[in-house]
Amino acid sequence: MTVPGRLTVWAPDGIGEVADGDDLAGVVADACPDLIDGDVVVVTSKVVSKSEGRIVAAEDREAAITAETVRVVAVRERPDGPPLRIVENRLGLVMAAAGVDASNTPDGTVLLLPLDPDASARALRAGLRERLGVTVGVVLTDTAGRPWRDGLTDLAIGAAGVRPLVDDRGTVDTHGRELSVTVTAVADEIAAAAELVKGKATRRPVAVVRGLAHLTTEDDGPGARVLVRLGPADMFSEGTAEAYARGLADGQRGGSV
Amino acid sequence: MTVPGRLTVWAPDGIGEVADGDDLAGVVADACPDLIDGDVVVVTSKVVSKSEGRIVAAEDREAAITAETVRVVAVRERPDGPPLRIVENRLGLVMAAAGVDASNTPDGTVLLLPLDPDASARALRAGLRERLGVTVGVVLTDTAGRPWRDGLTDLAIGAAGVRPLVDDRGTVDTHGRELSVTVTAVADEIAAAAELVKGKATRRPVAVVRGLAHLTTEDDGPGARVLVRLGPADMFSEGTAEAYARGLADGQRGGSV
Repeated sequence: MTVPGRLTVWAPDGIGEVADGDDLAGVVADACPDLIDGDVVVVTSKVVSKSEGRIVAAEDREAAITAETVRVVAVRERPDGPPLRIVENRLGLVMAAAGVDASNTPDGTVLLLPLDPDASARALRAGLRERLGVTVGVVLTDTAGRPWRDGLTDLAIGAAGVRPLVDDRGTVDTHGRELSVTVTAVADEIAAAAELVKGKATRRPVAVVRGLAHLTTEDDGPGARVLVRLGPADMFSEGTAEAYARGLADGQRGGSV
Repeated sequence: MTVPGRLTVWAPDGIGEVADGDDLAGVVADACPDLIDGDVVVVTSKVVSKSEGRIVAAEDREAAITAETVRVVAVRERPDGPPLRIVENRLGLVMAAAGVDASNTPDGTVLLLPLDPDASARALRAGLRERLGVTVGVVLTDTAGRPWRDGLTDLAIGAAGVRPLVDDRGTVDTHGRELSVTVTAVADEIAAAAELVKGKATRRPVAVVRGLAHLTTEDDGPGARVLVRLGPADMFSEGTAEAYARGLADGQRGGSV
């Protein structure tokens, strides 16, 4: 992998409230008229959801979480509300509340994730090319927790024109030995870098990352979907309490596995 | 949280091989003579380990992993070598092989993580202040995998003079509602941003992040240790297969929980 020089990251001002039906590429192009080829445009998926009308009434929140859920991973009771549900959603993302979001939404509403964030990223990329004549990468982000770590970080849930993973296997280290296990989730790192300038409570849902042209591609590429690891490779497909309870029940039934 | 303006991230050239006993602050100061107050210096923990002599013979790798292990989280057999062990190490980090590292080390050796990365970060910070007269933040990083996501990302295993977590609870969103669950692991996001310029196979183990002075602090602060979440809050303290097997055995013994 070519090592980049200097990375510059900023979050343009002046993006107002985004509503259902708004032309997101137009909004981003107006806020970032100085984009150049090889820039990566990082957009909080929340504004994509808003422009796509992915909004439901807050009283339907628990039902919305259920509707977005493909598989329950872990559940924890909470004294002050409905149980916390960590689930795999229809995008393959394992997230609390399936990614259904109640902050920065109009009163009485919650937001669903975009229907197809990779498609939304491709559309935004095409729209920016059309409006500004530039070939950029696009990353759509969401904020999520992680096992074993406190605090949330942003990660990539949609991507177009940027490599989501960089595989350094086969390259040699400074001692001439092959790097064996190094596949880097650069799209997630781009999402994290962008969060540092976007923040949470302000109207800066878009960031530009300049200096990663070596990670951008002419074609749209595979999208952020390839960052999802589920199935046999997933050693944490179920919460510890859930897996233990399932084993206990099987054992008490006299089952053997 | 104050929103920063422009973030600049670069990885200075000219850092040679680091060896046991080397003065790391001197090496970094020579490579980054232009540091200013409020910069964050991000250092791959590998070079910290080397300067601290945390190196053992490769034939002792499995024993070294065992020695670094506080608790086994999940184990997976591999056809081509010893089992993959995901463990909690003595730093509270849940990592494959306890963070014992075989790439970018002299032939026949493996590297252990620094004994106390927060202390190493504090020492580097003090050394840079002494040599360059600047008050910077320091983040030490390592590379790790994550459940449910493909690819590795860098995270913060040591920190000094930089806020590891930013708590936005109590601030209001653009609709005047309180943000409820937003504690951001900014030190991990800084580590991720720095990885984008450091890369893996090159001699660029140090990056400078400029533009986050609002996240730096006069005192050393709590360190990256506060990013560790284990104990009752950890819903994934054990791999799914391990937890299921434990439940099954308990059930077969006629136990009830």
